[in-house]
Amino acid sequence: MFRSREVFTQSTSEVKDMPKRVVIIGGGFGGLEAAKQLSGKDVAVTLIDKKNHHTFQPLLYQVATAVLSPGEIASPIRRILYKAKNVEVVLGEAKGYDLENRTVKLHDSSEIPFDYLIVAAGARHSYFGNDDWEDSAPGLKTVEDALEIRRRVLLAFELAEREAILTGKHKPLNFVVVGGGATGVELAGAIAGIARQALAKDFKAINTKESRVMLYEGSDRILNSFAPDLSERAKRDLEDLGVEVFLNSFVTDLKDGNVKASDEWIECDVAIWATGVAASFLGKELGAETDKAGRVLVNDDLSVPGKENIFVIGDMAHLKQKNGDLVPGVAPAALQMAQATCKNILRDLKNEPRENFEYRDKGSMATIGRNRAIVEAGSLKLTGFIAWLAWLFIHVISLIGFRNKLSVMSDWFWAYVTRERSALLITGDAEQLQDALRFLEAKPIAEPLPKKARRKALK
Amino acid sequence: MFRSREVFTQSTSEVKDMPKRVVIIGGGFGGLEAAKQLSGKDVAVTLIDKKNHHTFQPLLYQVATAVLSPGEIASPIRRILYKAKNVEVVLGEAKGYDLENRTVKLHDSSEIPFDYLIVAAGARHSYFGNDDWEDSAPGLKTVEDALEIRRRVLLAFELAEREAILTGKHKPLNFVVVGGGATGVELAGAIAGIARQALAKDFKAINTKESRVMLYEGSDRILNSFAPDLSERAKRDLEDLGVEVFLNSFVTDLKDGNVKASDEWIECDVAIWATGVAASFLGKELGAETDKAGRVLVNDDLSVPGKENIFVIGDMAHLKQKNGDLVPGVAPAALQMAQATCKNILRDLKNEPRENFEYRDKGSMATIGRNRAIVEAGSLKLTGFIAWLAWLFIHVISLIGFRNKLSVMSDWFWAYVTRERSALLITGDAEQLQDALRFLEAKPIAEPLPKKARRKALK
Repeated sequence: MFRSREVFTQSTSEVKDMPKRVVIIGGGFGGLEAAKQLSGKDVAVTLIDKKNHHTFQPLLYQVATAVLSPGEIASPIRRILYKAKNVEVVLGEAKGYDLENRTVKLHDSSEIPFDYLIVAAGARHSYFGNDDWEDSAPGLKTVEDALEIRRRVLLAFELAEREAILTGKHKPLNFVVVGGGATGVELAGAIAGIARQALAKDFKAINTKESRVMLYEGSDRILNSFAPDLSERAKRDLEDLGVEVFLNSFVTDLKDGNVKASDEWIECDVAIWATGVAASFLGKELGAETDKAGRVLVNDDLSVPGKENIFVIGDMAHLKQKNGDLVPGVAPAALQMAQATCKNILRDLKNEPRENFEYRDKGSMATIGRNRAIVEAGSLKLTGFIAWLAWLFIHVISLIGFRNKLSVMSDWFWAYVTRERSALLITGDAEQLQDALRFLEAKPIAEPLPKKARRKALK
Repeated sequence: MFRSREVFTQSTSEVKDMPKRVVIIGGGFGGLEAAKQLSGKDVAVTLIDKKNHHTFQPLLYQVATAVLSPGEIASPIRRILYKAKNVEVVLGEAKGYDLENRTVKLHDSSEIPFDYLIVAAGARHSYFGNDDWEDSAPGLKTVEDALEIRRRVLLAFELAEREAILTGKHKPLNFVVVGGGATGVELAGAIAGIARQALAKDFKAINTKESRVMLYEGSDRILNSFAPDLSERAKRDLEDLGVEVFLNSFVTDLKDGNVKASDEWIECDVAIWATGVAASFLGKELGAETDKAGRVLVNDDLSVPGKENIFVIGDMAHLKQKNGDLVPGVAPAALQMAQATCKNILRDLKNEPRENFEYRDKGSMATIGRNRAIVEAGSLKLTGFIAWLAWLFIHVISLIGFRNKLSVMSDWFWAYVTRERSALLITGDAEQLQDALRFLEAKPIAEPLPKKARRKALK
């Protein structure tokens, strides 16, 4: 439909009856929802993403902890949108813009012209300026991140087993998670889960239950976007699972995989970074005003000040709500922003006035581990098993693709009943394994500190 | 049980009542079966593999063509063997031996002593001395290989789509598979399948059905281990699926991903290597006599000449049968060799005489694509739908793990009914994508030759 070169070289507004082109950067929750909302409408839509698949991020930590496989939580964008005749999908990496000529520039120097632009490129974790820490302590943003974490966690156990078989002893395993938000809590709980249950029988020379899982949080409570009593309950649940929670503990340094918190160095076999926010550079590239995390300060209708045809939504947008809080960087907010933006674009086309965006907080949930979660929606608070069921339900429903819903439910049922894990593979080409092993094997085989001395050193 | 250092430094035969140690190198069909056969017997078993999982290779091509996910055809070795109290699993890469002291040397210089050694490290494809071709034309031996092929195949379509959207035209896609054995035939058939069916609706700017899948075979028939009429039927089936089969065509050169066959250069977007045999170097390292492919010329009881306590089984073994043929490098042969070897080891322990190995050919099967396969067992020959059902049945039964059987059957059912594919993901870190793109994007955008001229050039 929109394939000939002529469409791209002409300004579409000059040609009567030629539909306006909406370009969407990003196929995450925000971008995908925008494409769906504009499907079948009188616009031409081009969605650009540097990956060919949409990743259901709330369940990424389960790929990292070998419960699910990547294919169950990632869906090809093209497949999701194939029925929409006016939507085309381009695999490419947006590098910048030519704002005067209204085009998006891709990594290979090609340009995609737009009449409207929706920038939904998301945000990732932040190392607060210490980007060299990434190697030592990967974050959890993409399928590749999840596979790297899985690789390191499983390798840590494998190497300890080998050590024990060859030398008769091994140092205990330490897993460190930095950041007490939902991601950090979920990862810590899940790692404790595989150490204590799923892997306990597989490893014969080592006792996986002796491994330590430590969670470091800089503020005075974990999950601090929830009510204080729910934070407290979550902390107790985590500790029941075997996670050691350290509050008011900022990680100030990272070296060779070991972390420094509260002025003490902690030796760890695997460190995972789950804190900080760094929005995509594509926000700054617009020449708009951004906050410390790189989020764009948008107008109330989500457009960029001075550029009314360009919108920024999802984790990249910085918008104050009526109550003074920022619209949070969560999936429901991205979905709502996408819907509001598309409605405004369609109003524009009909010469109707735009409406301001208002975020409707429908509640939050976080899972801690088997049978344990917290849910908060308005004045409703749930904990324990009921909250966990609610968490499972909402996440399965939200998954894209019937096949994936079925597969995930089946894996969860299996894991619950057998306590096994479906995806305990260490994959990776020679180079990836080499890199992962570099951190693990480089650690000296030291006699473990007696437990009391270790705790003393950390407090 | 066998964990203290003392066990490893003493020769176990000096200590009365200490069980003999059997070391198995390799967790493929042969090695895994050997470990299972010795489970519960009066020996100590150590299985070494450089990966933590056993890969069900017959179905790897389905990971490469996005039908199955890695987790469905790979199982952690540790998980498979955890019930066997006398078996321990070590993740490590065997690099050589100290034959005088009877130890296996690992990559990190540690050594594992043995009383009996079973070398089952397998074989891979061979580039006939041109190992630099591997980058251009990957083979299919491991999960990583399969993911790399999948990445390149899907990226080829994505790039053509982008080209078509941006410039209004694209050159047609060429996929080349080198080698007309079962692996090559299955890959070619599957790629034709996704091009013509699964992806046809996903890509809007290009017509995936116009892509060409070409299979090059050096001999005068494909699947030449089968009867000639079955080879002929398979060729016709492949051509029905849209694959172009070129017989008597050796690939003599490979450059930038393009292949040279029968003195003509063929431009291809993705080339896959599915021919040649190169046994693991661990055979030669034994100081034993090997054939051109590196396979060890073993005694009739599968032991190495002059080293009666060392056995070589599976694809690494070169053994002539009574009818003059070599024992083939197929899974059933590896399983039988493992069983025979373990029986001989146990006979040794009871001071009973060993028995020679005799391969019992239970038949072969190869699948071509949807509804099409060939089966040959003695005088029984099957083709078409019935053969295909038999192929599906045998392969699901042989999979390890109830969970995997269920998952694979479910994916096959889905793919059959909907013609979709469950695992259409392009995964890979930035470096892997970069490498994969290097071949695809480097190709100039040329006007395609008219079909007649192309065919003339190739015949």
